[in-house]
Amino acid sequence: MTLCVALDAMSGDHGSSVVIPAALKILSEIDDLHLILVGDEKKLKSELSHQSAKVKQRLTVHHAGQQVEMDDLASHALRNKKDSSMRVAINLVKEGKASACVSAGNTGALMATARYVLKTLPGIDRPAIITALPNMQGHSTHVLDLGANIEVSPEHLFQFAVMGSVLTQAVDNLPNPRIGLLNIGQEEIKGNERVKEAAKLLSKSPSINYVGFVEGDDIFKGIVDVVVCDGFVGNVSLKTTEGVAKMISHYVKQSFNQNLWTRFAALVSLPIIKNLRQKIDPRRYNGASLLGLRGIVIKSHGGADVLAFTYAIKEAVVEVQKNVPSQISHILATLLSERRRIE
Amino acid sequence: MTLCVALDAMSGDHGSSVVIPAALKILSEIDDLHLILVGDEKKLKSELSHQSAKVKQRLTVHHAGQQVEMDDLASHALRNKKDSSMRVAINLVKEGKASACVSAGNTGALMATARYVLKTLPGIDRPAIITALPNMQGHSTHVLDLGANIEVSPEHLFQFAVMGSVLTQAVDNLPNPRIGLLNIGQEEIKGNERVKEAAKLLSKSPSINYVGFVEGDDIFKGIVDVVVCDGFVGNVSLKTTEGVAKMISHYVKQSFNQNLWTRFAALVSLPIIKNLRQKIDPRRYNGASLLGLRGIVIKSHGGADVLAFTYAIKEAVVEVQKNVPSQISHILATLLSERRRIE
Repeated sequence: MTLCVALDAMSGDHGSSVVIPAALKILSEIDDLHLILVGDEKKLKSELSHQSAKVKQRLTVHHAGQQVEMDDLASHALRNKKDSSMRVAINLVKEGKASACVSAGNTGALMATARYVLKTLPGIDRPAIITALPNMQGHSTHVLDLGANIEVSPEHLFQFAVMGSVLTQAVDNLPNPRIGLLNIGQEEIKGNERVKEAAKLLSKSPSINYVGFVEGDDIFKGIVDVVVCDGFVGNVSLKTTEGVAKMISHYVKQSFNQNLWTRFAALVSLPIIKNLRQKIDPRRYNGASLLGLRGIVIKSHGGADVLAFTYAIKEAVVEVQKNVPSQISHILATLLSERRRIE
Repeated sequence: MTLCVALDAMSGDHGSSVVIPAALKILSEIDDLHLILVGDEKKLKSELSHQSAKVKQRLTVHHAGQQVEMDDLASHALRNKKDSSMRVAINLVKEGKASACVSAGNTGALMATARYVLKTLPGIDRPAIITALPNMQGHSTHVLDLGANIEVSPEHLFQFAVMGSVLTQAVDNLPNPRIGLLNIGQEEIKGNERVKEAAKLLSKSPSINYVGFVEGDDIFKGIVDVVVCDGFVGNVSLKTTEGVAKMISHYVKQSFNQNLWTRFAALVSLPIIKNLRQKIDPRRYNGASLLGLRGIVIKSHGGADVLAFTYAIKEAVVEVQKNVPSQISHILATLLSERRRIE
């Protein structure tokens, strides 16, 4: 099968005005990639009209008559938007016509639809959302779940750890990712019963590199490769990260824009600030994976620009190349039989 | 009664080497303040020996023979360290010999001891920890609970909102602080049952300025004055904030230290970076309050330096001047009768 990714071209704040340029950019970078734009056929084809036949061979259009709005309830999207660009893109994965799909649409609707259409992998009770965040070591730390699962059991946290471990192995080429459980202290007596029980399950699995409890600041230290938590805590932590970064960036801009002298300093510092921004540029971390499904679904930030959206497509490509879903199934089966042996 | 604050002089990473200079600094700023250094009398007196009689009138020493270590379990401190500087400082508040106390010691032990010695206010089931964080409006946002209560009920969240509202009124001179409940979406259908139920309780209380759900990034936007959450989520959010800020600061330093040119730019930008650092200097936000007790107890960061510790003492002074504990009782009683009337 050729490497083919379906793109929900009507999603996010900018729709096709971001998705098409991102698609063109990534096609110029990855030779054997085919992309399918899913959405309003007439609109998309007219937007592609000035493209060469060679490009159009690898960038085709698949019609979908509806679109999921950012404020649509998941249940509403599921029931009433069966011809949405989001749903049709996921259908293409289900039908084997695409190996993955990317959408910048409403997370709740995307998760519900993906779960309904693709189903979860054997051994996985609940899919989870994972993304990478930058850390001080110049690498990244994967964090899950980011909001799909508000109430979780220790077993769910265990499954998240397995999925996070597999994804990080695949995406970051790490042979044995270090897994930490997010808690409010590193001592074994700290935390709620769920994390304590999950810690026991993880400690009993020799082939998972579980290193213990970590705290919120450890996400950015690079002392673990994967941080596991429930979706409520993970979502708050992710949004807190965005909030702090935005506030600091706001004050940096304000400080360098006060008077002639500070503007001169800004000019002098420009290359440094650019370099700095590149290191922790949130666009480079765009592309959260919906893990645990029988198919690859990537959620782009709704406000993603062209560069950010290309990162989401790249995430999809890597996961296809590394065959993440079947690796998750395989490793989970091994771990569960390992656990049974020990018990 | 004179304005008198007891300082746990043996606490934190630096003990009296930070507490004494901070005490001297604040005494020079606030005329009618009396401070009691609690700890090893011989050591503290020798460290004060070169001070004038006039200073020593307002900076006295109260002996305590033990000290709580950073890794002492709360239960161990409570049972076996009855003569610790922490416990004795809290006892002084209980006995009315001090109006507040400040400690940089172990949070768990401080909360357990304060709760045991001082007891909670009528109507408060559980004390909570609150601190201020900087926001983009140039003001601060108070967040609670930060780790005292891992599992909470909607009623607890309601009480946290009341306590946070009173503290913010007192400390920030805000007549009607805006209260937000931390959630993973702003829509009413989002979140777990606890936050949904707490939202109902808060909506039914006209004299609480409840504005709705907020997300992690809203802490830093300044759209609410108080953010209410359980202690697990609050602690993760606080530590995440610290982690992101440290990572950005690490990359700023690294970027400005790469070569001759970047070092020149750093020199040019120095006043701007200083100004920026001042705006979001975590030392200015040092001093978390243990709210809901029959007395004022302030927790300083363990690693606090002299400047940071003075901010913790200032927090204590303001809470004494505004009589925060009795205001909490008073407003809580009003709210509960208001709620009963509505029901």
